[in-house]
Amino acid sequence: MDPPARAWAAAGQALLATLAARLRDPLAGGAAGPAAAAPGRAWPAPEPCRLELHAPLPQAGRPADAVLAQALPLLLEGLPPPDHPRALAYITAPVDPFAVLGSLLAAGLQANLGLRRMAGLACAIEAQTLAWLAELVGAPALRGGLLLGGGSAAGQTAVWAALARACPGWHEEGLGARGPQLVAYASAASHHWLDRALRLAGLGARGLRRLPVDAEQRLQPETLARALAADRRAGRIPWLLVAHAGTVGSGAVDPLAALAALARREDLWLHIDGAYGAPYAALQAEPGGSDRLAACGASALADPAGLNQADSLALDPHKALHQPLGCGALLLRRPETLPAAFADAPPYYAEAEPAADPAPDPSQCGPENSRPFRALPLWLSLQAAGAQGLRASLRAELDGAAALRAALQASPAFVGGPGALGVQTFRPRAGGDAAVGQLLARLRADGHAALSAVRLAGPDETAPAAGAPRWLRACVVQGLGSAPEGLARLPGELAARLDPGAVGD
Amino acid sequence: MDPPARAWAAAGQALLATLAARLRDPLAGGAAGPAAAAPGRAWPAPEPCRLELHAPLPQAGRPADAVLAQALPLLLEGLPPPDHPRALAYITAPVDPFAVLGSLLAAGLQANLGLRRMAGLACAIEAQTLAWLAELVGAPALRGGLLLGGGSAAGQTAVWAALARACPGWHEEGLGARGPQLVAYASAASHHWLDRALRLAGLGARGLRRLPVDAEQRLQPETLARALAADRRAGRIPWLLVAHAGTVGSGAVDPLAALAALARREDLWLHIDGAYGAPYAALQAEPGGSDRLAACGASALADPAGLNQADSLALDPHKALHQPLGCGALLLRRPETLPAAFADAPPYYAEAEPAADPAPDPSQCGPENSRPFRALPLWLSLQAAGAQGLRASLRAELDGAAALRAALQASPAFVGGPGALGVQTFRPRAGGDAAVGQLLARLRADGHAALSAVRLAGPDETAPAAGAPRWLRACVVQGLGSAPEGLARLPGELAARLDPGAVGD
Repeated sequence: MDPPARAWAAAGQALLATLAARLRDPLAGGAAGPAAAAPGRAWPAPEPCRLELHAPLPQAGRPADAVLAQALPLLLEGLPPPDHPRALAYITAPVDPFAVLGSLLAAGLQANLGLRRMAGLACAIEAQTLAWLAELVGAPALRGGLLLGGGSAAGQTAVWAALARACPGWHEEGLGARGPQLVAYASAASHHWLDRALRLAGLGARGLRRLPVDAEQRLQPETLARALAADRRAGRIPWLLVAHAGTVGSGAVDPLAALAALARREDLWLHIDGAYGAPYAALQAEPGGSDRLAACGASALADPAGLNQADSLALDPHKALHQPLGCGALLLRRPETLPAAFADAPPYYAEAEPAADPAPDPSQCGPENSRPFRALPLWLSLQAAGAQGLRASLRAELDGAAALRAALQASPAFVGGPGALGVQTFRPRAGGDAAVGQLLARLRADGHAALSAVRLAGPDETAPAAGAPRWLRACVVQGLGSAPEGLARLPGELAARLDPGAVGD
Repeated sequence: MDPPARAWAAAGQALLATLAARLRDPLAGGAAGPAAAAPGRAWPAPEPCRLELHAPLPQAGRPADAVLAQALPLLLEGLPPPDHPRALAYITAPVDPFAVLGSLLAAGLQANLGLRRMAGLACAIEAQTLAWLAELVGAPALRGGLLLGGGSAAGQTAVWAALARACPGWHEEGLGARGPQLVAYASAASHHWLDRALRLAGLGARGLRRLPVDAEQRLQPETLARALAADRRAGRIPWLLVAHAGTVGSGAVDPLAALAALARREDLWLHIDGAYGAPYAALQAEPGGSDRLAACGASALADPAGLNQADSLALDPHKALHQPLGCGALLLRRPETLPAAFADAPPYYAEAEPAADPAPDPSQCGPENSRPFRALPLWLSLQAAGAQGLRASLRAELDGAAALRAALQASPAFVGGPGALGVQTFRPRAGGDAAVGQLLARLRADGHAALSAVRLAGPDETAPAAGAPRWLRACVVQGLGSAPEGLARLPGELAARLDPGAVGD
């Protein structure tokens, strides 16, 4: 091996050692250090970024090891460790270490998945990976799709595919006169990627009708049926229903099969946003899995007619499949609707031969042109874990969340709110919003755990009101690190941080 | 270090060794092997993907090293090596090996750059990286922006920001009545990301007016001025001009300063698509750099009033900055136009405290919500190379392309067509399209080099005609591997593959 390649490999080995130490203990190398963190393994308190990153671009280069030696302590101290067992604020999961190696390999191979003729093998691996995802979640009818940069991109891509179908002439005329009449439907609990996707498509906020949810934050078919009838009477054109398998606020799963049947009857494109929750449908295939799903409010995921009935389904492998950020999956019942929406015929390309693989290039199936090899880390992870390993990780998350729920129920200090899958909302039994804010402020200061706060829409509301009560939210997406005993201790640890008045009587 | 972490590091070390061998010789580990490839280092002949990737998802997992042992030979044989010196078909560059390590680190850190409160340091590093890019290309007026998944995403994001400005009420009403009147402008040579971006925004193909180019494929301001006057007379609303710093077909650079002045007068948003070519503006800062830019048809990049006058500028760091795929940069004169277009106020988020950093979250500045740490590989690369190292790599590419141009000019077999920066078109002196096709077929069969073919718009044409002559296209984006001697030999090597009739008299 020649000297530059040798130096490169040496720098890489040093990096691997650093990352392996962090893998062994998420706080290794951080300011607090492993000793200070034990035994509670406190989440490091967030601080404003003190670093002054205002230096001009260096003129002269520096050896790679010198650059890394300066950068690494900064990064390890300044960024929260992703696999901390009390990082419960958002549905951003710790990464599978093996997928981290997959990212190294994908970057090193630099395959451009826009064109099959340059990266046919990589495209085949992406197709296999998508087929495995569909198989995993029990949705074999979803025959193909695309990996995109995240759940928002996957959802946007589905919206555009649906729009090209709903708006004949869209390629040439744009939305045209139909635009103002088009109405999409989703629940009051849906994620704002959808509002944004409709805005980016030119439809604006008025293109989305949000519908009230039940006490468990689920959209009921009769609510949708009433809205559809009213809109049709008013001359509007219903075209898209977005149902949720795991809402952002409380993890709620809509009654998917019933909504799918209604969408079919009404000729709506059904997109299921399973960014967070769809992978848990993998548990339907194991003994007791359906009961476990029902116990955590997600019986719709145990129904084989659920996800499998979607026209499109988005997953975020960087959530419950523990992939590096930057990977969203879109699966479709009719993958050929993607080229119908996205295909171009750039007049400057004039290749001599038809491609050996007659399938359309991925650059003709989505918004991107050049594309990274997003499938590689996931393809490797799926093989290393196998369906059994994946289900073990998903089961651990639901069991961890169940332990948290039980402890909250037993706690004199807290009341539980809506919660499904690995997400649970709760708040101090007394003291209202002030007590929620006080607890969050104390957690921020002492870094014991990272939680977030959400507002939820009440009955008959189409969005959470500005003054609605705030709920603390815990998202258990720690994979096999979701130890029930640690999560069961959390309510007590949080209660110790409440003012006496907030604990209630 | 405990056993899982140790096994993980060992698997990573094996991967590093494999990638280092490939770094030393791009064909190492491939089917042909280094011996067979010397001395010409033939580009491996593309074959249809023979692999049957139709196995179901494995039920049981397997050890990571077993998964890698099976996957690696497949990947190394099946994917073309990115740093092959004769991979000239597309503007996809070989990756900086140090940036590959940056990808490993970014995946391992799993920072989510959507929210500052979770990844403030990473957001600060992204901001510094963007500032360095602006400094590098001599555009200090571009004060901020965003890293996105690629050049198309960067351009789309600029289009949406411009649209939110052009269409008051866009958030609520969508395109509304203004939609059908809006006209965007670009040259006949522009990349199809723009057509797609306008379609995705709901404007359709009719929303883009393509304008004829000069003999060097450049849009001239007087052509634009005439079109603007005609459209304004007809009651249409000009809102966006996309100028090119490096077109896809021939690398052409539009007269940026003159177009910028016109755009300013006419109140158009000027987006410069510098996905490929903008980094070469870094050469304006070195002695002789402006002459070198002028000699390769890119004198507009030597003008400090060029890129610096843009409202927005897109770069693809995975091209001439040699980053892993999946990184596009958007720089803006008024970065605050991004939140004006993209900001949402999701009613379910109810954080207790205002963020320590009052800048808007990146998830409020673009189409994405969760975002990977795209800046990290680039931030590390820029420090390791320094401005001097970056300029050396860019200079090597232009010198390589100049050697190719000179050799084509001296060749009895070929005539050169339009070409600027590192891109050059050419075709056999005789034999027309058939000779082009025959040469490409022979190159595909023997794998000596990878070239592509393009059609270019002629005078007064707004797009290349279907029957326009085809040009061979060579894109020199090999960094310091763009050896002029190898590129000077290429015309002779290609001529040896022509039928006698195609060489001409």
